[in-house]
Amino acid sequence: MKQADMESVINRLAVFPYRKVFAAESMLLSRMLRAIGDPPIEIVLWNGQEVRSSDAAVASILIRDRGALYSLIADPELHFGELYSSRRIEVQGSLLDFVEAVYRAWPLMKGLGRKRSPSFAKSNTLEGSKSNIHHHYDIGNDFYRLWLDERMVYTCAYFRNQDMSLEEAQIAKLDHVCRKLRLKPGEKVLEAGCGWGALAMHMAGHYGVNVKAYNISREQIAFARRRAKEEGLEDRVEFIEDDYRNAEGGFDAFVSVGMLEHVGVEHYRELGGMINRTLKADGRGLIHTIGLNYPRPMDAWTARYIFPGACPPSISQMMQIFEPFDFSVLDVENLRMHYAMTLDHWLCRFERNADAVRAMFDEEFVRMWRLYLAGSLTAFKSGGMQLFQVSFARAGHYAPLTRQYLYEGDGQL
Amino acid sequence: MKQADMESVINRLAVFPYRKVFAAESMLLSRMLRAIGDPPIEIVLWNGQEVRSSDAAVASILIRDRGALYSLIADPELHFGELYSSRRIEVQGSLLDFVEAVYRAWPLMKGLGRKRSPSFAKSNTLEGSKSNIHHHYDIGNDFYRLWLDERMVYTCAYFRNQDMSLEEAQIAKLDHVCRKLRLKPGEKVLEAGCGWGALAMHMAGHYGVNVKAYNISREQIAFARRRAKEEGLEDRVEFIEDDYRNAEGGFDAFVSVGMLEHVGVEHYRELGGMINRTLKADGRGLIHTIGLNYPRPMDAWTARYIFPGACPPSISQMMQIFEPFDFSVLDVENLRMHYAMTLDHWLCRFERNADAVRAMFDEEFVRMWRLYLAGSLTAFKSGGMQLFQVSFARAGHYAPLTRQYLYEGDGQL
Repeated sequence: MKQADMESVINRLAVFPYRKVFAAESMLLSRMLRAIGDPPIEIVLWNGQEVRSSDAAVASILIRDRGALYSLIADPELHFGELYSSRRIEVQGSLLDFVEAVYRAWPLMKGLGRKRSPSFAKSNTLEGSKSNIHHHYDIGNDFYRLWLDERMVYTCAYFRNQDMSLEEAQIAKLDHVCRKLRLKPGEKVLEAGCGWGALAMHMAGHYGVNVKAYNISREQIAFARRRAKEEGLEDRVEFIEDDYRNAEGGFDAFVSVGMLEHVGVEHYRELGGMINRTLKADGRGLIHTIGLNYPRPMDAWTARYIFPGACPPSISQMMQIFEPFDFSVLDVENLRMHYAMTLDHWLCRFERNADAVRAMFDEEFVRMWRLYLAGSLTAFKSGGMQLFQVSFARAGHYAPLTRQYLYEGDGQL
Repeated sequence: MKQADMESVINRLAVFPYRKVFAAESMLLSRMLRAIGDPPIEIVLWNGQEVRSSDAAVASILIRDRGALYSLIADPELHFGELYSSRRIEVQGSLLDFVEAVYRAWPLMKGLGRKRSPSFAKSNTLEGSKSNIHHHYDIGNDFYRLWLDERMVYTCAYFRNQDMSLEEAQIAKLDHVCRKLRLKPGEKVLEAGCGWGALAMHMAGHYGVNVKAYNISREQIAFARRRAKEEGLEDRVEFIEDDYRNAEGGFDAFVSVGMLEHVGVEHYRELGGMINRTLKADGRGLIHTIGLNYPRPMDAWTARYIFPGACPPSISQMMQIFEPFDFSVLDVENLRMHYAMTLDHWLCRFERNADAVRAMFDEEFVRMWRLYLAGSLTAFKSGGMQLFQVSFARAGHYAPLTRQYLYEGDGQL
């Protein structure tokens, strides 16, 4: 059945005037639950009927209308998020426990057997990237300020120990990146995709380097420039509202944190070529990105509503950046558990400020973001998603003999 | 011209009865030197004529006969090693400096533009591997004992600091691998390609695990069994003279040090499948291998004389082991400078024992191995070859939060 036909059937059923649940409908629902690995959840329908109960249930799902039921059965991967956001489905109990139960039961949520391509995204050409990036990052700085750390770092933190606050762990991450890059005062650094500018300012302020930082999100660049001025760093950090692919010049180091997810594998060789063109003979670099154990597209809901055009790579895909240009990969570190911890902080802060978010947008937006943060936390915690930091250098570059230097001292500046 | 025709021409010229060097021959030699990037070397011909001199020359090459000259011009990559081994070419000055000068000048030696496939090797099927492995590792334990450390570790050491002896650095390597594997007493470990058994015995003796260690080199297995008995470890280490592909059973950890070079990329998926079949649900592993910045075959001389069938992988190629089976890569460490230091130790020890090697074999063998050790040292030092340690685990495995634990204490047992 085509998508349009399916929707027309669903819409007709949605106004079907019986509260009664047909036996065939219960059977279809049970069959769908089997298909997603029978997670330990209860399901209650609009008329109060329990289709499925379990003593071990971690949460209970209330499906509020017949249309929601059919929509869910038709495509749970895409529609659950829509129906949850619009309150046609409620989760009673812990949303996190529910998401984790589904994630663990359902191989498809870990991407096994996933075939669908992300839809509705623009291709990541110079123009397409602008549209895709605007969708997520230009929602408004005031929104992100409600639940990010004070430096507005919207990437995985580094918890040198379990007890660090989010603020401390984000500084530790900036520092971990700088140490890996082995920055020396006076060096020139190119940053591709600089977010709200925290790393660029950290490098300039604490390591004495000069930074050119690229970003195509207008709101982020405006914020970063204001911050750099406030901190007296505007002579050492240049924030450029342009695509990193337009960068020119001789840099000692290249760095990119949380940008590769938006580049698209078909552009990796082009990225490598840009790094090769702009990096000095003894240059080195670091790319920090969400990644996967093997190539697959994102889940349909996230691809449509949260991150159009995004595609986290596997390591073999990442190598398309480095291998054509004889770069040496020096170090790959997988920090996925740090992202689970980061998302845990973000989700807590988000919940504390849910009323403020609701006032800025609406209830649907609050629920959509709650689900996105909870789903991401679960994916990183369970090993469905990875976080890679890849350090590289030109072939002849001499790196420190061991990685001991990354673990000396307490890392406090 | 076909290889057979070329050799017939060369043979005829070799007995050409003039000591005089023709102008055309000097021109051809100069042309070849240009083609390999004009390294700073002097060349002297059989009649004492200096074809090329340079104040900055790091070494002088004496070409002893006309046949050697033509052979060198015809295929310097393959024939230099042959001619040097058979003394038809002499290197006056430091062989290391000479090799390094050529390596730096000649892009082909770094593999750029290399197209040739290794020849004369058997495919790495169960049968072919036996033949290839026998060629290198069954030369005789007495030979390797002359220049390896006392534990007979024939892979890259780990110099926790610059001043470590080879003995200390090999123990540090065994320990670095064990720490990365996070071995616990009583666990079961599968080792694929165990050499003379040093790692298997270190794991059993210092970490209290039970090891099944596979190797198809008869001489190495016999040696390892004898050592295990001497050290009272035969109840915890089982040395199996068989292909690792025949392994069965539930292991907590998989480890392979210096074996992947001999597997062949076309068998990587099969290796991954074997690991997937034998590793427990919370299992993890480590593969330590010589590697490359991008896929290319070995140089022709090494492929023919030293390591038939060997093919060091790039990281993207290595991922064919892990990605099809949803393994998470947790850590990749590039230790190429440690291999340069290891080879420096080996070459020194080899030279100290050159007379003993000559007595076991002959002068040609001594020169062949000297060139192989010097060439390898140069390749690792200059960045033409890499050494990768890749740690991995099943997707849901929980790793330590940071890599701090690898760098705590002085690492002494």
